[in-house]
Amino acid sequence: MPKSASLYETSDQVSALSDAELECVDAWWRAANYLTIGQIYLMANPLLHKQLTAADIKPRLLGHWGTSPGLSFIYAHASRLIRETGQQMLYLAGPGHGGPALVAAGYLEGTYTETYPAVTTDTEGMRRLFRQFSAPGGIPSHVSVTTPGSIHEGGELGYVLVHAFGAVMDNPDLIALAVVGDGEAETGPLEGSWKGVSFINPARDGAVLPVLHLNGAKIAGPTVLGRKDPAEVRSLLEGHGYDVIEVGGADLPGMHHRFAAALAHAWGRIRAIQAAARGGDWDGTRPRWPLIVLRTPKGWTGPEIVDGVQMAGTYRAHQVPLATVRENPDHLRLLESWLRSYRPEELFDDNGSPTELVRRANPAGSLRMSATPHSNGGLLMRPLELPDHRRYAVDVPAPASVRLESTRRLGELLRDIYRTNPDRFRLFCPDETSSNRLGAVFEASDRGFAERVTDADDHISRDGRVMEVLSEHNCHGWLEGYTLTGRHGLFATYEAFAMVSASQTIQHSKWLQEAENLPWRARVPSLNILLTSTAWRNDHNGFSHQGPGLIQNVITTRGTIGRVYLPPDANCLLSVADHCLRSTSYVNLIVIDKQPQLQYLTIDEAEAHCARGAGVWAWAGTDDGTADPDIVLACAGDVVTMETVAAAQILRERLPHFRTRVVNVVDLMSLVRHRDHPHGMDETLFNELFTDHVDVVFAFHGYPGAVHQLVHGRPDADRFRVRGFIEEGTTTTPFDMVVRNRVSRYHLVMDALNNARRTPPGASDLKAWCEARLAEHAQYVVDNLQDLPDIRDWVVSGGRHE
Amino acid sequence: MPKSASLYETSDQVSALSDAELECVDAWWRAANYLTIGQIYLMANPLLHKQLTAADIKPRLLGHWGTSPGLSFIYAHASRLIRETGQQMLYLAGPGHGGPALVAAGYLEGTYTETYPAVTTDTEGMRRLFRQFSAPGGIPSHVSVTTPGSIHEGGELGYVLVHAFGAVMDNPDLIALAVVGDGEAETGPLEGSWKGVSFINPARDGAVLPVLHLNGAKIAGPTVLGRKDPAEVRSLLEGHGYDVIEVGGADLPGMHHRFAAALAHAWGRIRAIQAAARGGDWDGTRPRWPLIVLRTPKGWTGPEIVDGVQMAGTYRAHQVPLATVRENPDHLRLLESWLRSYRPEELFDDNGSPTELVRRANPAGSLRMSATPHSNGGLLMRPLELPDHRRYAVDVPAPASVRLESTRRLGELLRDIYRTNPDRFRLFCPDETSSNRLGAVFEASDRGFAERVTDADDHISRDGRVMEVLSEHNCHGWLEGYTLTGRHGLFATYEAFAMVSASQTIQHSKWLQEAENLPWRARVPSLNILLTSTAWRNDHNGFSHQGPGLIQNVITTRGTIGRVYLPPDANCLLSVADHCLRSTSYVNLIVIDKQPQLQYLTIDEAEAHCARGAGVWAWAGTDDGTADPDIVLACAGDVVTMETVAAAQILRERLPHFRTRVVNVVDLMSLVRHRDHPHGMDETLFNELFTDHVDVVFAFHGYPGAVHQLVHGRPDADRFRVRGFIEEGTTTTPFDMVVRNRVSRYHLVMDALNNARRTPPGASDLKAWCEARLAEHAQYVVDNLQDLPDIRDWVVSGGRHE
Repeated sequence: MPKSASLYETSDQVSALSDAELECVDAWWRAANYLTIGQIYLMANPLLHKQLTAADIKPRLLGHWGTSPGLSFIYAHASRLIRETGQQMLYLAGPGHGGPALVAAGYLEGTYTETYPAVTTDTEGMRRLFRQFSAPGGIPSHVSVTTPGSIHEGGELGYVLVHAFGAVMDNPDLIALAVVGDGEAETGPLEGSWKGVSFINPARDGAVLPVLHLNGAKIAGPTVLGRKDPAEVRSLLEGHGYDVIEVGGADLPGMHHRFAAALAHAWGRIRAIQAAARGGDWDGTRPRWPLIVLRTPKGWTGPEIVDGVQMAGTYRAHQVPLATVRENPDHLRLLESWLRSYRPEELFDDNGSPTELVRRANPAGSLRMSATPHSNGGLLMRPLELPDHRRYAVDVPAPASVRLESTRRLGELLRDIYRTNPDRFRLFCPDETSSNRLGAVFEASDRGFAERVTDADDHISRDGRVMEVLSEHNCHGWLEGYTLTGRHGLFATYEAFAMVSASQTIQHSKWLQEAENLPWRARVPSLNILLTSTAWRNDHNGFSHQGPGLIQNVITTRGTIGRVYLPPDANCLLSVADHCLRSTSYVNLIVIDKQPQLQYLTIDEAEAHCARGAGVWAWAGTDDGTADPDIVLACAGDVVTMETVAAAQILRERLPHFRTRVVNVVDLMSLVRHRDHPHGMDETLFNELFTDHVDVVFAFHGYPGAVHQLVHGRPDADRFRVRGFIEEGTTTTPFDMVVRNRVSRYHLVMDALNNARRTPPGASDLKAWCEARLAEHAQYVVDNLQDLPDIRDWVVSGGRHE
Repeated sequence: MPKSASLYETSDQVSALSDAELECVDAWWRAANYLTIGQIYLMANPLLHKQLTAADIKPRLLGHWGTSPGLSFIYAHASRLIRETGQQMLYLAGPGHGGPALVAAGYLEGTYTETYPAVTTDTEGMRRLFRQFSAPGGIPSHVSVTTPGSIHEGGELGYVLVHAFGAVMDNPDLIALAVVGDGEAETGPLEGSWKGVSFINPARDGAVLPVLHLNGAKIAGPTVLGRKDPAEVRSLLEGHGYDVIEVGGADLPGMHHRFAAALAHAWGRIRAIQAAARGGDWDGTRPRWPLIVLRTPKGWTGPEIVDGVQMAGTYRAHQVPLATVRENPDHLRLLESWLRSYRPEELFDDNGSPTELVRRANPAGSLRMSATPHSNGGLLMRPLELPDHRRYAVDVPAPASVRLESTRRLGELLRDIYRTNPDRFRLFCPDETSSNRLGAVFEASDRGFAERVTDADDHISRDGRVMEVLSEHNCHGWLEGYTLTGRHGLFATYEAFAMVSASQTIQHSKWLQEAENLPWRARVPSLNILLTSTAWRNDHNGFSHQGPGLIQNVITTRGTIGRVYLPPDANCLLSVADHCLRSTSYVNLIVIDKQPQLQYLTIDEAEAHCARGAGVWAWAGTDDGTADPDIVLACAGDVVTMETVAAAQILRERLPHFRTRVVNVVDLMSLVRHRDHPHGMDETLFNELFTDHVDVVFAFHGYPGAVHQLVHGRPDADRFRVRGFIEEGTTTTPFDMVVRNRVSRYHLVMDALNNARRTPPGASDLKAWCEARLAEHAQYVVDNLQDLPDIRDWVVSGGRHE
């Protein structure tokens, strides 16, 4: 790929639209509209070389016309700006169901054929382009992974600005042109994302140029912003911090001139802001970045009136303006005259190739927005320079002899990653970096903030690159945009509130799953999510903070993408983090609490353990490997691992001849059959750990059902007795949490004895002893509700936790 | 409960704050602040009758001081407004971690003791109040289900305005005072909820009075709105449509006078808007509702400087300003002087009861915001007048002989519910009511919209009560607010995008689960969620629209709350809907597609089938009940039921002596053991359907793992071979969807034969025949990618779907 021009090599001025340019921009736009309508309607006769007949029309009409002409209009003018200036631009279509418009753009720019050689730039290729759209075996009706030039899936609305802001961070030469539809603008995530400008640094980051495209209607009715007084809309956007440029109308060529001028003005503003910031002539206040409000009729240039009803400019133009073309000759005639209104004979030659007039509108090479490498970020990806994570290891002289906050060590690793990768790594977190014990990163970078900073602030500056905003949607979406353009990062959040952005996790997983099927899409850095402040240690915050549900949602993704890690201690966490940060195109979920916790493995042991994904902890059990154990005690997750180790200790001390095997699982997907997930253990290894017949008492961090579904299909899966979080949460002690959810050491001991292959002598006594301990605890709970000194006791002894 | 004054009986004027009122409002505020600090710090000596010692201090200091004085300040003044006017008010605390402030308010108003008699209004009760806060066995650190007066859990931020708007719909006499914190204001859901005013009708609805409380900081840093130029903040809120009233400062008593005046002004504005609308003097334009921006220092009235560092007014005041009180005598001394600065001796008598001066600040009876019945909506709930749902039944002369869009019948039922319940039922939907085939409701009610309406609009008016906004967060949250205040409704949405608001579903489930433990909380109408446009029939939209994940999240809720229904046809849907709309305090998830589908059961059969939750479809299978079947074919979900019935038909026709039993499951929770869920079948019934040993081929609508986890613990659960959605989605035909996910009729036939108790003669031939059908389909897919006529074939034959 040719090296793109840097910003400083571009022209500084955009001239007014000449007649020649107008002609070519308008021709390109007409061609894009023609191709859009063709995709919705035609399966033959793509260039109208004959009169249109019902047989040319697709049997099922799908797709969205309404937003498409606006999307193509903006695209055409952005291309012209690129040609004038050499600006690198990434186009993000918020009204993502305008898919045919973006497909048309890629086709006109030649990228579509370069990407999919079977879709040739001729009549047959055009027929194929039309036929594949929103039809079986084809492409979706919205902008998607298959669309060259896109990093943004148009299915679930709301994320176009977060993706745009993520894309321009540490990308100084890039402008992300983000078209926001007025339907999408009603979603919470979108409304919460305008404030990205409060976090952008004009010297180091690129710029987002939002175009709020108000066509007034969504599927079935008007939009809020489309119907508000324009003064209110302006006020709203100015309030978010933008310099609002308004363009509206339907007159041609007037709209071409006005929009070209608006775009040139916006680009000039961006250039001036960046030049000042980069040239040292900046007082540090947050710039007022330009934003364009574009008002055009919905379904602009489409049929005005159909069956006596107003179509253009109303919600009726949202999808297919002429609905019964095959059956209704009037509709067929209307469609033909609509298509011919773009004068296709001027746009495509006899072979169906775009004419010179149209092609002149395209920028060159990788400056074409459908071909920019920023939209295929794996091409630009440089691996992280990772410090040796072993340097941050905890010294563990013996298992369970040291207690510390594991995430602090990760914080130190992240700090040094910031230092060695000042241009391509960021941490994203909803205001909890220090709370999550990752505060060491502030030794390497401040929090980034473009609004006013005061002397009382702590590690906040406009140059900071740790991204804190109290919005999971922003954090998640920024990281998506950042990784899809080839850079690396981590989203750290409270476990329970990871569900706020669960749909983003799912949709990003779907993106990566689909990208796997497209060889032209280069692998991108993984989406790494750290869940901390977990259910088990939110005893003080109570039930609303106790929810390990994201695991359930990640394990349902198609085999190769989702990975869930439950490191039991700091050294395992370091090993897992190193692995995840090196990986590409996965969704890695890492779950570990932030409170002081026991440490089990040396760094060498942790490396080996994590590499296997699961392993026997011989030191914890009594199984000497010479015969089958009486029971397997398995665990996944830090707190339940502590309970399991404690249960094994009780059994070891009180029933030394009872053969207990302790298996710790770090990589949850290792439980799955290998044919269902690449991390799945083969049957031999699985049976080495779990046997194929001994009962397994499995203590799990999350909802027990997750393990049931993961081990399904393993030999005699019914023998897995899983204990985990069963929604018994409240404001209580850490130990009471494990008792309430029946996963305490005493429950595990009783489970082990009840399910063992043989009943050892002394089993009844030990069970009675466990019952007594639980009764003591119940009494403790009663007393604690009535008598104050027990609070002190709770803190001193950790609620008799260990 | 005393009947509350109607709006028109209230006073019209609020006088300026007199000296006497100032004294009592200020005293109440000081008392609330005192109690807040007490909750965070003290476990003994609550009234400082002796000098404070380390032994009086809780061993672990938890809680959030920063936002609390502001919350109490607003509360004190709202109470004064209520006393002056008789206005019914509901107080929603967005900065929900200001829990101690709201607990203090309830305690000062006497409600806390009325609700929890053990927390007496005396010294011992106060000690108990302090001790229980954010401590084991106590209450969470944020506003929660346990807080009298609250319908809003403060754990997961972002929903205070959606709850407030939902609460005032069809509640003309209510003002919901919604305090929005500047931390919460950064979340997407909150930013997306300001626009509630665009949907409120001043004649029929009550009013939301937002107080945006800017104290400038969140946990660890400044907030965006706290640091923006105040002119930008004003511009933003005016852009949303509000009339902005600003009050700021820390001076006393000046702040009391200014805030009292602001509140009086806001209330007067609301009254004037409502009076005009209700008196007929309204031009129909959207009112500019008042909104107060209150700027006070974070941790106002708390320690200014601690250990030489500025505390008040900074993020450091967020939680516990004095962190080491037990260990550090300076901190202990500071705490004591801080507490004494409120002059507790004026606020509480020697017995620890609030003095007359403080009590005078409380409104009377149910006008106290901690005692308003609107916050315990079950008290106000009137059951729906439900038309006989059998009237909408489909005539089904024989199973699988009729095909229609099932949700249309539901739409007709909902239409008539609108008619018979014009004051207490609403449908909430992100712009998809017609798309989801529920459009019959528009015969009874328009869409509600307060912005400009044009002649071209379809069923939109300011009087409409069907709520469409392109925001799952708004729809979901409005319904929550509506049901928590005692009214009924349904949220209908595309299945895949239900994950957008999944965290709301989870948090609402948690609310209902906790409320079950509190006898004083009356049961409220259930949260009913209809998922349609399902994964299996989003063939044209593709993979991003294919996600049945919400089921996974609902089945993990604690036993009694979550219910999942998969009606296979219209009559079952009607029966399920009737059941759900009569139910209380559940989260009911109903999943059914909107496309034309086969109808199986008469309404009588459907009623009986749904009442049992699952049942044998004798007409579909060959099992005559005289002996065990050779295989059980089970199904849950409309599309997979069709495949199962078709598979059974193939087996019946080709291997008539093979005993196939078809079991359809409507109520997914019936699969769970009865001890784990009230809907769970007892073992006898379960075995009557599934036997305890015959293999079950289970075709499931969602991810297969869900069924594995539900049947865990049933006899020999490993015999359940579950097929379902395995993330094999794309743009394709409906039939290809079931083939790709290996749940087609042919896969099911082969599964049945492979897992049957005996291999019938002809099994190999039939399997080969199935393989041939799948090979044909594979060829069809290949051809279809290359040849146009197959598209026509796909539509005509439904992709050879049946």
